[in-house]
Amino acid sequence: MNSVTDQMTTLKNDRFLKALLREPVDVTPVWMMRQAGRYLPEYKATRKKAGSFMDLCKNPELACEVTIQPLERFELDAAILFSDILTIPDAMGLGLYFAEGEGPNFKNPVQNRASVDKLFVPDMEQELGYVMDAVRTIRRELNGRVPLIGFSGSPWTLATYMVEGSSSKDFAKVKGMLYEDPDSMHKLLDITAQSVTQYLNAQIDAGAQAVMIFDTWGGALTTRDYKNFSLAYMQQIISGLKRENEGRKVPVIMFSKGGCQWLEDQANAGADALGLDWTIDIGLARNRVGNTVALQGNMDPTVLYASPERIREEVAYILDSYGKGEGHVFNLGHGIHQHVNPEHAKAFVDAVHELSKPYHR
Amino acid sequence: MNSVTDQMTTLKNDRFLKALLREPVDVTPVWMMRQAGRYLPEYKATRKKAGSFMDLCKNPELACEVTIQPLERFELDAAILFSDILTIPDAMGLGLYFAEGEGPNFKNPVQNRASVDKLFVPDMEQELGYVMDAVRTIRRELNGRVPLIGFSGSPWTLATYMVEGSSSKDFAKVKGMLYEDPDSMHKLLDITAQSVTQYLNAQIDAGAQAVMIFDTWGGALTTRDYKNFSLAYMQQIISGLKRENEGRKVPVIMFSKGGCQWLEDQANAGADALGLDWTIDIGLARNRVGNTVALQGNMDPTVLYASPERIREEVAYILDSYGKGEGHVFNLGHGIHQHVNPEHAKAFVDAVHELSKPYHR
Repeated sequence: MNSVTDQMTTLKNDRFLKALLREPVDVTPVWMMRQAGRYLPEYKATRKKAGSFMDLCKNPELACEVTIQPLERFELDAAILFSDILTIPDAMGLGLYFAEGEGPNFKNPVQNRASVDKLFVPDMEQELGYVMDAVRTIRRELNGRVPLIGFSGSPWTLATYMVEGSSSKDFAKVKGMLYEDPDSMHKLLDITAQSVTQYLNAQIDAGAQAVMIFDTWGGALTTRDYKNFSLAYMQQIISGLKRENEGRKVPVIMFSKGGCQWLEDQANAGADALGLDWTIDIGLARNRVGNTVALQGNMDPTVLYASPERIREEVAYILDSYGKGEGHVFNLGHGIHQHVNPEHAKAFVDAVHELSKPYHR
Repeated sequence: MNSVTDQMTTLKNDRFLKALLREPVDVTPVWMMRQAGRYLPEYKATRKKAGSFMDLCKNPELACEVTIQPLERFELDAAILFSDILTIPDAMGLGLYFAEGEGPNFKNPVQNRASVDKLFVPDMEQELGYVMDAVRTIRRELNGRVPLIGFSGSPWTLATYMVEGSSSKDFAKVKGMLYEDPDSMHKLLDITAQSVTQYLNAQIDAGAQAVMIFDTWGGALTTRDYKNFSLAYMQQIISGLKRENEGRKVPVIMFSKGGCQWLEDQANAGADALGLDWTIDIGLARNRVGNTVALQGNMDPTVLYASPERIREEVAYILDSYGKGEGHVFNLGHGIHQHVNPEHAKAFVDAVHELSKPYHR
């Protein structure tokens, strides 16, 4: 048996990958965005051990530890690499740091054409080797238990932080560049898209079995700007990705939060699956995309504050809305909140498996 | 000539009212959400004179002054009452206050069924007489120059502040009540809807010539919850509103920010016009609602940071997207930002009038 076949046969749970490719499964697979995170006391303990948030991201052993933690508590069907979406701009020399109690900040934000011209595609094994090391370590540690998801921020979403220098409410600076100097914005997005393509391919080479592009701020754009400045660059990335590795397809998930008005355009961007936030009825979304893509989502993360009974009721509603057949990966519509009781997350995951049986043959 | 006819004939510019009723106009009318606000130095001066933000809201003369200020600078086709959306919960005894540099806060937020049971419909001329006084003062001061818009927050949007006690990122408390104790949430929303109905009718009696319901946080809900907990109560309000006064129709505008996925449902709620944020193409929105309602919107307020040339280009794009004919009131997709240069707001307003001529006969 060669090593590729060996790796393939050792994947004990491939529901997640099958559902993304719209193949039949026994029950609906489920994972949670930000499943490795502050709502888990064991995460907080590891984080404390690591030092800063970026220290944790840059330590492959500890990044692996927190990636696996939620799998020890819940019957999740996928693991997701623990990392930050801003590793690429950091590797481009923008100087990422997190001030205590604040979001991300850049020491050297992109302010004008001169700073756009200085951007470069980072070397994936040099500047971003710690990410690939984490992927390899996690794959080894998972030992075929469930597939590992790699990920990146979308070029537009990375651009918002690169130009604003931090989180933003109104995106005044980055939209200012988009409106006033679209050439520079396109140049920034193109070099970022090239970087993301190489970054995700390097993660696939290191062992990521599916990849997801997080377009957290695509929904802040007008329709025209979404297509030209966000979707177009995700499409460029997807067309450059390795879609097969270890003799197995590597599905791609694309998620524009707040972007359900553009589902039809998203469905034609080349991804295997689309992420959905909770504001759209998943049954309606399924009707709109037809058989082009699988759908991942979409319970409001706030439902996890409610009782286990209420959580089950909401899971049942979403399963019923999606209906029978292939192509659904259950997830939250956004990351799990830090104050959620882990027992409620367990109730959610268990409810998906238990209640979804009748929807599969 | 009786006084009603007298008041009618003195309305010198009725483009805005006509467009809301989908009647022909010479050019597309335009106003800006939050047009009386911090981007204007004269507003800041009046605010300083008044004291706190609520002192300004509660002073009819000064509220009138800031309402009129933007009309002195720009060729706006409507004035909007200067007030806060949280006047109703304040009048219910929740104790509204603004800490310096912060958003709104309530001393006595609604925390459980017992506090829901204490809520009551405030007396419009007693507890909220300062609002009606402001409406009367502004109408007198406007002297028929343009119509005056009255407004209220939607019941769901008011509920988010009433239960959270302040602005919120994730709405954990208010959604907690919605999920766990829907009866109490419905009771809260019903009494708030009754209050909003009386509040808007009192504004109409005092002289408001159109009214707008701001559902700022409807877009944070799932489709099912939006329909049951936000849209249903706006519908209840609209069905209870006076639709004619002073011998003239009083149009109703409904605006759910982040809610363009529910346009068809909104179009059937009884409003004359729907507000649109900037994430939907207004031409597509027009196709979706057909001839049921007028549309108000929808330039991204961030475009006002760009040059006057770029602002004109965006105005032209939106006019072209909407196309020829009736039923468009131009506006921003959300309130004008505080750091916008007033000259850019002028460029926006002038561009709408100048460039829209060919779209009307």
